[in-house]
Amino acid sequence: MFKKNDWTLLIEEDRNYKIVAKVGSGLLQTIRGYIDTDTLIGVPYGTVVTSTLGAKFRAIPATIFDIIEHRFRIKAQAIYPKDAIYIVKATAIGPGSRVVEAGTGSGFLTAVLAWYVRPWGIVYSFEKRFDHIRVAIKNIKSVGLDLYVDLQLRDVVKSGFGSMKVDAVILDMGDPWNVIEKAVEVLKSGGTLAVFSTTIEHMSKTVEMLKTYNFYNISIEEVLLRRWKSVVGELRPETFDVVHTGWIITARKA
Amino acid sequence: MFKKNDWTLLIEEDRNYKIVAKVGSGLLQTIRGYIDTDTLIGVPYGTVVTSTLGAKFRAIPATIFDIIEHRFRIKAQAIYPKDAIYIVKATAIGPGSRVVEAGTGSGFLTAVLAWYVRPWGIVYSFEKRFDHIRVAIKNIKSVGLDLYVDLQLRDVVKSGFGSMKVDAVILDMGDPWNVIEKAVEVLKSGGTLAVFSTTIEHMSKTVEMLKTYNFYNISIEEVLLRRWKSVVGELRPETFDVVHTGWIITARKA
Amino acid sequence: MFKKNDWTLLIEEDRNYKIVAKVGSGLLQTIRGYIDTDTLIGVPYGTVVTSTLGAKFRAIPATIFDIIEHRFRIKAQAIYPKDAIYIVKATAIGPGSRVVEAGTGSGFLTAVLAWYVRPWGIVYSFEKRFDHIRVAIKNIKSVGLDLYVDLQLRDVVKSGFGSMKVDAVILDMGDPWNVIEKAVEVLKSGGTLAVFSTTIEHMSKTVEMLKTYNFYNISIEEVLLRRWKSVVGELRPETFDVVHTGWIITARKA
Amino acid sequence: MFKKNDWTLLIEEDRNYKIVAKVGSGLLQTIRGYIDTDTLIGVPYGTVVTSTLGAKFRAIPATIFDIIEHRFRIKAQAIYPKDAIYIVKATAIGPGSRVVEAGTGSGFLTAVLAWYVRPWGIVYSFEKRFDHIRVAIKNIKSVGLDLYVDLQLRDVVKSGFGSMKVDAVILDMGDPWNVIEKAVEVLKSGGTLAVFSTTIEHMSKTVEMLKTYNFYNISIEEVLLRRWKSVVGELRPETFDVVHTGWIITARKA
Repeated sequence: MFKKNDWTLLIEEDRNYKIVAKVGSGLLQTIRGYIDTDTLIGVPYGTVVTSTLGAKFRAIPATIFDIIEHRFRIKAQAIYPKDAIYIVKATAIGPGSRVVEAGTGSGFLTAVLAWYVRPWGIVYSFEKRFDHIRVAIKNIKSVGLDLYVDLQLRDVVKSGFGSMKVDAVILDMGDPWNVIEKAVEVLKSGGTLAVFSTTIEHMSKTVEMLKTYNFYNISIEEVLLRRWKSVVGELRPETFDVVHTGWIITARKA
Repeated sequence: MFKKNDWTLLIEEDRNYKIVAKVGSGLLQTIRGYIDTDTLIGVPYGTVVTSTLGAKFRAIPATIFDIIEHRFRIKAQAIYPKDAIYIVKATAIGPGSRVVEAGTGSGFLTAVLAWYVRPWGIVYSFEKRFDHIRVAIKNIKSVGLDLYVDLQLRDVVKSGFGSMKVDAVILDMGDPWNVIEKAVEVLKSGGTLAVFSTTIEHMSKTVEMLKTYNFYNISIEEVLLRRWKSVVGELRPETFDVVHTGWIITARKA
Repeated sequence: MFKKNDWTLLIEEDRNYKIVAKVGSGLLQTIRGYIDTDTLIGVPYGTVVTSTLGAKFRAIPATIFDIIEHRFRIKAQAIYPKDAIYIVKATAIGPGSRVVEAGTGSGFLTAVLAWYVRPWGIVYSFEKRFDHIRVAIKNIKSVGLDLYVDLQLRDVVKSGFGSMKVDAVILDMGDPWNVIEKAVEVLKSGGTLAVFSTTIEHMSKTVEMLKTYNFYNISIEEVLLRRWKSVVGELRPETFDVVHTGWIITARKA
Repeated sequence: MFKKNDWTLLIEEDRNYKIVAKVGSGLLQTIRGYIDTDTLIGVPYGTVVTSTLGAKFRAIPATIFDIIEHRFRIKAQAIYPKDAIYIVKATAIGPGSRVVEAGTGSGFLTAVLAWYVRPWGIVYSFEKRFDHIRVAIKNIKSVGLDLYVDLQLRDVVKSGFGSMKVDAVILDMGDPWNVIEKAVEVLKSGGTLAVFSTTIEHMSKTVEMLKTYNFYNISIEEVLLRRWKSVVGELRPETFDVVHTGWIITARKA
């Protein structure tokens, strides 16, 4: 049963149009007309709601990824979900992990990390731009993950990360090579450093710096997602799609 | 500092050769000679150990993925880490989630799921073959995740999953279409069903059955990993690599 | 030096905007204003022309692919150049080869085949739709390749290919399985049959039929092109691109 | 009907094992026993021959690519067929084209180019290593394409290409940037320069040099081939395969 302030995923019947809405937040404008989200309070999961233009939507509980992917306000270029989850794997982050992230951007990756370090872990997230951090705070609060995030307005190139010790450091910033020395200080022995790079030159410079600082087990990986049309009788990969986002570089501190 | 029974990742200096070992388990045979793991008890992380053939290894704490990927005994064809983590994302599993998995196989995916549902979630894992379940139990225990797994010897095609309600159902079996009706019963409204398929015909048949049972938001995705050589001056993707493992099909119950 | 009716490739200086034009065909409308193609008669290759909006274009001779890709009128969905050239390779077509093609469509693949069978080969191309064949004739004539093409309005499913013997048969049609028996008749021993399929079901049905007719050495291949941005300092693959066109199935007649 | 010295492709019945042999060259050793190629003289295409171990092979005429891929002796790392044919397309080479190639290597690409410039074109191919050129000559003669190749032992970095004018220059060498200035001299206006690069640094350096020499329309492309298993009921891409060979860089002289 939906309660006020629950997030719901509204999927149009027979189509692929989807919206994520907050239950009890009044009228929601969509390309199929308005949907009254107040009518969802107290109804069972799976209920069908009808928009003012007559489109029927099935209302089911939204997952964390539904909300992040559909409702987060984007200020900076956000990392893709496929890359975010692979970083979680590559750094072996899990419940209880302590993680440093720079920069925060719109908080997309921050929220994913926070989701997985619950309930005892913490994500120390650093961002130097005030306009970004404002958006990130709103985004992270909207999914109730602010308890697991320590968000700081700080230029880590100048000021470093502080005196904690963490399991992983994740860098999604323009000049990660400038903070690798500082990353070494906060990383536990055996901890993983992950860097997200979008160009070859960025990737190359990062790898070189990781070697300079004696990182072990350096790996460069690119995650590609091939999505297929799910029409039986016409099964085939999508014709156009995203083909490059970036490289994920990981290395271990010895 | 290493304690007896800790898992350690031993990385050879200047090379990419890696081994995962249990601290205090005596002599370990490697392609570089023997390593005495007892000498690691009580030494700090990052210590260098020398094999009987003179190879030097840096000892750092192993992550859950290090152990799973290097030390799990494989009875059945195991799902790849890239697919396992993407299933975690696609089903939005996290700390506290309740999950059904069939079949268990060697417990590779089971362990990954268990790692992420900690500390309050549970993975109900079903396997019909006794020889597989024996291996799976040992594997899961070896990483201390047995607390989060309810492993049952059962043919789910005949006997179903039981009476619980779960957030996600994951099928990695030869004939998933035969249990989709039963999967509907244990899935919560809005819950995600994920199926791993290795052939086109398997994938096609699964998608058809998901439509029959009114699943929503059916998606077919293939995760490809492109690994690069990390030699600066010779940066390029690996020449040979795994190019196909399988398709991940996900759908939502309404 | 350009002569009247030569094809020229006009490339805008400092940009990637390109147009293919016929020299001496009067004013050409472009998104950068008009270009007077008559002024190109008698000038050397590499001359710079200026549009009415002041854009400067370098005029160089156009290649066959420049013309086909930029100037062919498209009636039916055309095969991509990457696939057309790979079919040339997979069928081992070259100067002097005799080839059957069905259907002609807009003549894109026909022109590529004709280009490579020159000066002694021939492409027998069959198309059942009159509106397609009209477009194809114009396209093929515009590049002067009509000498090497025998274009026929015929439904090959009903009427077959005729009594010639050819080195290769290429099928780019909705139901290739219906003409495989007839393809066997026109193929020389050792000749190659190539089929272009865009869906899994189409591909699967084709492969099955090839086995029924005892074809040898059946192979299924997909050609993927990854294009990179050529900005030094920002080298990276394109973000969005075509990711699927179709499968090329080839087999040998024994 | 096979004549002495014809090339034949022998395909094992029911399997995918293939061999390319010269008809009338006596006993051929294979992993299935010996095959007497003299028995093929005068028999029709498609005849079945039996090896001394009882394996049955269907004998069909070999194509140029069958011979190149199975019988060329490889001294240097050869370019892959998928890349060779794409270079043919990217440079718009065809019957009658005049082409410069450096270096020759084992003559793999040389033979492919020669095949397509027949009967009036020419491939000027330069190689600085005597051991390579010896192998290349034998390879090219074995397929009867020596008429279309002008093979020269020369270090083009020192001595350039000569005074001819060609439609395309193709560089497959360690330091292509050192001959780009010389390539400009032999290329016709509008002609295409193609470079094959296997590492990022090589590719980056090449692109930079092409910009220095005012080349137009620079493009960087990577051709990927995804091969599928052709077993109906188990259709899926191959599990392991070649995933990287190199980048094809093309540009036009203005």
